[in-house]
Amino acid sequence: MSEMRLVVVGAAGRMGRMLIKAVAETEGCTLVGAIEREGSPVLGQDAGLLAGTGLLDVDVTDDPLPVFAQADGVLDFTAPAATTAFAALAAQARIVHVIGTTGLQEADFTKLEAAARHARIIQSGNMSLGVNLLAGLVRKVAATLGEDYDIEILEMHHRMKVDAPSGTALLLGEAAAEGRKVSLKDRSVRSRDGHTGARNPGDIGFATLRGGTVVGDHSVIFAGPGERLELSHRAEDRSIFARGAVKAALWGFDKKPGYYTMANVLGLDRL
Amino acid sequence: MSEMRLVVVGAAGRMGRMLIKAVAETEGCTLVGAIEREGSPVLGQDAGLLAGTGLLDVDVTDDPLPVFAQADGVLDFTAPAATTAFAALAAQARIVHVIGTTGLQEADFTKLEAAARHARIIQSGNMSLGVNLLAGLVRKVAATLGEDYDIEILEMHHRMKVDAPSGTALLLGEAAAEGRKVSLKDRSVRSRDGHTGARNPGDIGFATLRGGTVVGDHSVIFAGPGERLELSHRAEDRSIFARGAVKAALWGFDKKPGYYTMANVLGLDRL
Amino acid sequence: MSEMRLVVVGAAGRMGRMLIKAVAETEGCTLVGAIEREGSPVLGQDAGLLAGTGLLDVDVTDDPLPVFAQADGVLDFTAPAATTAFAALAAQARIVHVIGTTGLQEADFTKLEAAARHARIIQSGNMSLGVNLLAGLVRKVAATLGEDYDIEILEMHHRMKVDAPSGTALLLGEAAAEGRKVSLKDRSVRSRDGHTGARNPGDIGFATLRGGTVVGDHSVIFAGPGERLELSHRAEDRSIFARGAVKAALWGFDKKPGYYTMANVLGLDRL
Amino acid sequence: MSEMRLVVVGAAGRMGRMLIKAVAETEGCTLVGAIEREGSPVLGQDAGLLAGTGLLDVDVTDDPLPVFAQADGVLDFTAPAATTAFAALAAQARIVHVIGTTGLQEADFTKLEAAARHARIIQSGNMSLGVNLLAGLVRKVAATLGEDYDIEILEMHHRMKVDAPSGTALLLGEAAAEGRKVSLKDRSVRSRDGHTGARNPGDIGFATLRGGTVVGDHSVIFAGPGERLELSHRAEDRSIFARGAVKAALWGFDKKPGYYTMANVLGLDRL
Repeated sequence: MSEMRLVVVGAAGRMGRMLIKAVAETEGCTLVGAIEREGSPVLGQDAGLLAGTGLLDVDVTDDPLPVFAQADGVLDFTAPAATTAFAALAAQARIVHVIGTTGLQEADFTKLEAAARHARIIQSGNMSLGVNLLAGLVRKVAATLGEDYDIEILEMHHRMKVDAPSGTALLLGEAAAEGRKVSLKDRSVRSRDGHTGARNPGDIGFATLRGGTVVGDHSVIFAGPGERLELSHRAEDRSIFARGAVKAALWGFDKKPGYYTMANVLGLDRL
Repeated sequence: MSEMRLVVVGAAGRMGRMLIKAVAETEGCTLVGAIEREGSPVLGQDAGLLAGTGLLDVDVTDDPLPVFAQADGVLDFTAPAATTAFAALAAQARIVHVIGTTGLQEADFTKLEAAARHARIIQSGNMSLGVNLLAGLVRKVAATLGEDYDIEILEMHHRMKVDAPSGTALLLGEAAAEGRKVSLKDRSVRSRDGHTGARNPGDIGFATLRGGTVVGDHSVIFAGPGERLELSHRAEDRSIFARGAVKAALWGFDKKPGYYTMANVLGLDRL
Repeated sequence: MSEMRLVVVGAAGRMGRMLIKAVAETEGCTLVGAIEREGSPVLGQDAGLLAGTGLLDVDVTDDPLPVFAQADGVLDFTAPAATTAFAALAAQARIVHVIGTTGLQEADFTKLEAAARHARIIQSGNMSLGVNLLAGLVRKVAATLGEDYDIEILEMHHRMKVDAPSGTALLLGEAAAEGRKVSLKDRSVRSRDGHTGARNPGDIGFATLRGGTVVGDHSVIFAGPGERLELSHRAEDRSIFARGAVKAALWGFDKKPGYYTMANVLGLDRL
Repeated sequence: MSEMRLVVVGAAGRMGRMLIKAVAETEGCTLVGAIEREGSPVLGQDAGLLAGTGLLDVDVTDDPLPVFAQADGVLDFTAPAATTAFAALAAQARIVHVIGTTGLQEADFTKLEAAARHARIIQSGNMSLGVNLLAGLVRKVAATLGEDYDIEILEMHHRMKVDAPSGTALLLGEAAAEGRKVSLKDRSVRSRDGHTGARNPGDIGFATLRGGTVVGDHSVIFAGPGERLELSHRAEDRSIFARGAVKAALWGFDKKPGYYTMANVLGLDRL
């Protein structure tokens, strides 16, 4: 089979450069395009030099249309407005669109679903293989153990993170709630301070740590009578998110148009 | 449905007394017999007083035959020779036989399988729900992740433990090996000291800690490029093994004769 | 040297029975009295039978005066009102008074300090050797590392605990604040939820987990640029608090009257 | 005070480039030289371009003598033979020599001690602030707790590491042995497999995990009756070793000639 031809959008950003590097380092795919917004100072530069991989003979451009037309897939960790626009182009070109963009709202999802009639959309709040696998395990364990096993979700991130709990912690909470067939909104306890009273059976608790330069640690604890099961993920390096996206693109190469998640990519939908 | 009538063998031992207590505290079952070996000083004593639950009106006896005849199940954390003898009696009485005995050899398993034609044998190297669930998860994760995720198994037990790695660590190693479709014997690295060279892809490593009064901690680490997934179990209290055995007995109450494990009891065979 | 003669007050409570057991199991001391309140159903019973150690030939009584007169020390995990009354009697008898009672208020401390003119008062919010040693380490590390190392304190306790953070977590927070020469009250962040903004340098964060039957886990994390130092304590068993109290009493045997803490007992005041 | 003028030796290696970057990013010092061995392909290149910091106007050279003569300190993570030669030059120039080189033998130390009559030698097996602080804490705790607290040292490193236990684990073991006033050689247990028998009181155990891309995790566990104290360090990023070396150099700027360690730099010799 021929190599999958991939495009990176938002090529000059921190994640963009990591995506370029991940494409260059992965067998079975090749970089054929790098997009930045109009007026970006990197337009015309070589994408490989930008990303520190050495020359790749791919110039950064601000015109996605001709690039998408020659490609099999696009990797996108930009922002909601850009992402929905790229999804429309990906649908037109009938290619794969891997989306790691965060902060997507209801209206954005509607547009992505429309695009998924012609494009293969693969979207996830966390592109790491480990976190998506963890979410599948949490769903399974929550469905297996009863309410005498209390569920607690702990996360730690660097000192600059501005929201709590992390999106990934909430994703894990959703997995736990699905496993138990309850609504996370109804059962989550997002902080504890002062006289809280005893824990309510069925609660899903969150706790947040912030400090230093931690990339992202998450633990889901099932604390029962006399024993604890703890499922943890530790991200050492942001590059795992880029590698996850490339793996998703390769998976989508021979799929039909549709809306997919990392659970599909990993075969965790059948876990 | 009527209560399940249970017998505890090895009633005076540490696990025997915990089993008596667990039966007394669990709904849906009742203690109808307590067996100790001939000449034991506790023969004739009340099983409840022995176990610290208050009077249960069940005297400890050394004659299992009439006791098994009036029972629906037997709980057994004794020794291999006693266990195979009890299995034969359980087969005769066509009842449930829950076996937490450790150190069973090939020849013992052959006898248990013979007994399983008439008895419902439920046997496991670790009766805790958490550890058995963990083993199921480890098998699943090992089957999902490739060899770029290194598998390491860590355990810690109290200072009196005489063997390493623990039986439960080996059980978790077997689960990992099954998931990967390799033989644990061929791929396990049971200690590292001195100039070891780089890790071989596909190895399953073990590390052992000993100290204090730790009941039993186990972790299985999947260490990949830039991320780690860690699945851990922490036993706080030996009573979880007793409660697991009682749960297994209740599960077996309405089953057909056969050889079962805790994975069957927990529905983890269909995980 | 002769054995230290010890009295347990609140003898029938969970901690009282653990204290009786700890005295019986420790060399260098002997139980000479066991006090319960007027009207308690255990008055007249043998303290050893009550605590499950076997007969100790010490009857439970409700009259502390003659018992204190024949004793060298008293172990007390009762309630503030009882504790301040016992401290007055301990001062009169010029003996050691080990106090693990929680919930003491300003007015109580004033009374204890008065008693410490004649009694040797040894008081701490947590009697375990490990936690007190941990507090000393936290103070030292907080004094050594600058504000580019963020301090976070994590604790987990069983599902029945009604307050958050735990008293021990706050004790550790105080140790961190002392090390940094700041006021904990001014710098503590006791929960995080929603848009919190980036972490403020110098904050001391708390996070609370609740579930299962966890006796008490505490971690203090110093998260700096590119590295983390984590100091943790794990209580497996409440008996460590009883053993800590007995050790404190033995330490106080030959000391002068005064107000002491576990830091003095452990020599951590000179750490 | 004027800026400290620093030289990096082994400038083209992974640690050399990190040292150049750390000097460039730290206030109070400036890069004045970068040394590589004769015949290195980077001779004549700009040190800053080599390290990815942007132009620093310092060319890489193979002649240390004139460079040392104009410098206040040298940063060295090379190999034993080079390091002892550089130490002689540093003594001649009467400057600071920070040594993070590993694998030094008895004869090397003798040479470094000779150099320390005129140079300020600062040498450590691990330059991170966190690990050196941890070693000080371990010494203190080992001296405080008796042999009923078992000491275990756990480390995890990436899959390419060829020796076990890590040098840092051994450094922590030495700290524990010093605290207990025993010889590590006599008391260390470096692996456990098979029938080991119960743990000997006073043993210092090691356990090693290998996998993935882990930079370096170390834990020292004190496991006593009913409780555990665990002191852990987690290196997220190798740059902490470079920053530690620069901090050491700055500390040494105004010191007298002598042989120092990171414990001196951190004030941990007076812990």
